[in-house]
Amino acid sequence: MERTAYRLADIAARFGGQVVGDADTKVQQIGTLEKATSGQIAFLANAKYRHQLDNSKASAVILSRADSEATELPRIVCDNPYSYFAKLSAFLNPLPECVPGIHSSAVIGKGAKISPQAHIGPQVTVADGAIIGAGSVVMAGCSIGEGATLGENTRLYPNVTVYHGCIVGSHVIVHSGVVIGADGFGIAMDEGKWQKIPQIGRVVVGDHVEIGANTTIDRGALDDTVIEEGVKLDNQIQVAHNVHIGAHTAIAGCVGIAGSATIGKYCRIGGSAGILGHLQIADHVEIASFTLISKSITEPGSYAGIYPFSKNDEWRNNAVHLRHLGDLVKRVKALEKEMESLKGEKI
Amino acid sequence: MERTAYRLADIAARFGGQVVGDADTKVQQIGTLEKATSGQIAFLANAKYRHQLDNSKASAVILSRADSEATELPRIVCDNPYSYFAKLSAFLNPLPECVPGIHSSAVIGKGAKISPQAHIGPQVTVADGAIIGAGSVVMAGCSIGEGATLGENTRLYPNVTVYHGCIVGSHVIVHSGVVIGADGFGIAMDEGKWQKIPQIGRVVVGDHVEIGANTTIDRGALDDTVIEEGVKLDNQIQVAHNVHIGAHTAIAGCVGIAGSATIGKYCRIGGSAGILGHLQIADHVEIASFTLISKSITEPGSYAGIYPFSKNDEWRNNAVHLRHLGDLVKRVKALEKEMESLKGEKI
Amino acid sequence: MERTAYRLADIAARFGGQVVGDADTKVQQIGTLEKATSGQIAFLANAKYRHQLDNSKASAVILSRADSEATELPRIVCDNPYSYFAKLSAFLNPLPECVPGIHSSAVIGKGAKISPQAHIGPQVTVADGAIIGAGSVVMAGCSIGEGATLGENTRLYPNVTVYHGCIVGSHVIVHSGVVIGADGFGIAMDEGKWQKIPQIGRVVVGDHVEIGANTTIDRGALDDTVIEEGVKLDNQIQVAHNVHIGAHTAIAGCVGIAGSATIGKYCRIGGSAGILGHLQIADHVEIASFTLISKSITEPGSYAGIYPFSKNDEWRNNAVHLRHLGDLVKRVKALEKEMESLKGEKI
Repeated sequence: MERTAYRLADIAARFGGQVVGDADTKVQQIGTLEKATSGQIAFLANAKYRHQLDNSKASAVILSRADSEATELPRIVCDNPYSYFAKLSAFLNPLPECVPGIHSSAVIGKGAKISPQAHIGPQVTVADGAIIGAGSVVMAGCSIGEGATLGENTRLYPNVTVYHGCIVGSHVIVHSGVVIGADGFGIAMDEGKWQKIPQIGRVVVGDHVEIGANTTIDRGALDDTVIEEGVKLDNQIQVAHNVHIGAHTAIAGCVGIAGSATIGKYCRIGGSAGILGHLQIADHVEIASFTLISKSITEPGSYAGIYPFSKNDEWRNNAVHLRHLGDLVKRVKALEKEMESLKGEKI
Repeated sequence: MERTAYRLADIAARFGGQVVGDADTKVQQIGTLEKATSGQIAFLANAKYRHQLDNSKASAVILSRADSEATELPRIVCDNPYSYFAKLSAFLNPLPECVPGIHSSAVIGKGAKISPQAHIGPQVTVADGAIIGAGSVVMAGCSIGEGATLGENTRLYPNVTVYHGCIVGSHVIVHSGVVIGADGFGIAMDEGKWQKIPQIGRVVVGDHVEIGANTTIDRGALDDTVIEEGVKLDNQIQVAHNVHIGAHTAIAGCVGIAGSATIGKYCRIGGSAGILGHLQIADHVEIASFTLISKSITEPGSYAGIYPFSKNDEWRNNAVHLRHLGDLVKRVKALEKEMESLKGEKI
Repeated sequence: MERTAYRLADIAARFGGQVVGDADTKVQQIGTLEKATSGQIAFLANAKYRHQLDNSKASAVILSRADSEATELPRIVCDNPYSYFAKLSAFLNPLPECVPGIHSSAVIGKGAKISPQAHIGPQVTVADGAIIGAGSVVMAGCSIGEGATLGENTRLYPNVTVYHGCIVGSHVIVHSGVVIGADGFGIAMDEGKWQKIPQIGRVVVGDHVEIGANTTIDRGALDDTVIEEGVKLDNQIQVAHNVHIGAHTAIAGCVGIAGSATIGKYCRIGGSAGILGHLQIADHVEIASFTLISKSITEPGSYAGIYPFSKNDEWRNNAVHLRHLGDLVKRVKALEKEMESLKGEKI
């Protein structure tokens, strides 16, 4: 693919910032300071990497005002180099265009309404009554269940499964292997056997959501599971039935969220963290990786609960005492009493 | 779909319980106390939600004897409202019927035996010699390996993979993205390279098992991996080779079970827990979320090992001392000795 | 399938070791000591199972020199029975041969170069410009993205997804549900909304790598994500963008590796462990299951950080004090001071 090159002056005209050095310098792609080649523009967003400016072969650099004189390369100086880079990269690397049409190998059910502006790839199955909006792309091997709905300009990478009746909004990106709308884990013990509880709610995914590879979002037991607009989910996240995730919350890989948990807006949850069922998490809460949240959080802020690692034998020598920590506390309390009593005697 | 409505009197005749109020009240679906609408029956299984009775728009409610007078709505009073609800919901929401037939886009191998009462959906591949029983439904994009067997009335949602030779029982539900029978992680180091150990066992899944989305169950190295009848597995569980899970055990999402672990019957394992390889877990063991079981458990009971979370800076201030807990114990022991000695001198 | 039987003498001629007992004994398959039947050869690699020799029905056994007289069964005595077993099993159980050809239901894009010696199964999609080498097997339902490359003698089990532009080497095994090359989790906050950062790097997988079921490996943000030769990944591992995993490292199931982490060669990482972003892990590092690595490791060795489990009420009684561990340390320090002062007075 032939790439278009843009002058720094044109870029600054579009995205703001101030050009220092040759404003006619042309760039066509983004690169890292370390590996960028001619024709590429790099960025410096973290002072830790400032030394990489010295040997960078990039044609230009995006920098903060504080770093504006840290290189002699042609550069764009701006308030937030990381966000500038993100926007410029999105401009230089748009998603591939939607080529409307239905591949001859796709199987389309009765009453399905597929926009003539949508793209349905090879080996796709669209079940009866499903609806797919204009500009949406459903890639190879996806399965769209009965009566499910995809909005406009939504993209499903290959081998995504959307169960019956679920709703996926517009401008949503769903990566391969994602399963939307499988049954929640609802069982009731009855005379020594588990009775399955039908899961008759749906999954409702808002606009501008992105869902990473192999993430699973279960349908609600009775009411719906809801992912609000702008939520960003990384890979291999498990979202149980009736969870509600507030707008613009970002969740890293391998997180597990148990049933009926409610997570606020603008939260950030680290990798492999967990949230127990029926909890409420306030807006603007940050949860560290590997932390299990075992009761509701009502205050914004940053929370953690991680066992610190060490060399194996040190860990072993320390961890063994955890099983007697309550005793240790009692022993210290006893010592304190004895100490008080000894000191008392002296008076 | 037109739903059938049932009189409370008819429901009680079928499932037991006592009708209080208008026994001619008709309901056609289950709802939550909070969101049920006319024609729906709600249930109260947890005293915490009793206040929701006041404003519920449900046409009727399922209640325990203790709560029988907590509302004026028509109601069914019974011993176990949760289990009653489960059974009534299963009655009102049966799985879709199996429509026998093989979709024209499916690819069926030589010698495969597919019951004329089974349903094979679009884009399915059934390899040579596989067997699929009556009433079983294999949805879009599934792949059934050579010589694999599915029993009767078993349902595979779209994009499930069953490897060669594996056995799945009857009345089993397998959700999308599940992989049954991939190679176990068997490698031996030999002169600086990993030698792969062929995995020649199978996976054998009993009757009435349910397997959640994107769960993986590896085939055995030599003998089989076994999931006994009635086991319920949530999403994204990893079951390694030669694991044996006892009947009616229920496992929540994201649990990892390492090779050759044996888990008893009627166990309950919380989300993101782990069990190390070659361990034995007794029957009726409960394991908390996020807990790693690192040695065998011989007694029924409830087990846990979770780092308690707190505000990030509190966590940091406390966790730093874990790396010196052994030292702290020694310091307390030294203090105790000195204290003894001081007290001795006084005598 | 008719199996070929081999004399112990022939096996020893091929793989070394010394035959004790009847060298004409024929075996055709491997079995466990416990379950092997006639015609099978078992092995003893762990003294813990020596008692199983007594009742084994195996026709022959592989043993270490130390155990050479522990049975009267015909046997092969060697230095490393486990590795011997691995090699013999690989010989007796070769991967199925590649049957060249493209299934009529597969969809092949423009300009794709598929070796006439490759096998493309049913319902596979190979996008424009993809390259698939000789001897490679792409099983049912796989999707190979635009311009992606598979080397020679590589095997993709059903329902694998390889995104555009990614490179998979030769002699690689990829299990079902694996996703190679989905977008890394790159977002930048901009005026209350997450801006997506295009992920324009690739995934590059070296030769002789094995990737377990439902594992995900994200493409790089700008540069590539790299899995070096001989790496062995178990199921449900999450490898984030720009991670670099050194040759011959083995990683157990459910591990999460955050963005731009670099892992050395010959490392071994236990199940459900985690590695935070941008860390460096030296060669020959072992990490225990369930351990979060939160800073770089520069020395080879064995590392752990696991909360020890116990009965639920014991755990609760002990864990509650973790939130006050810093205070406890202060209390001990105060006692030590007072003790010093008391002892001082006595002199």
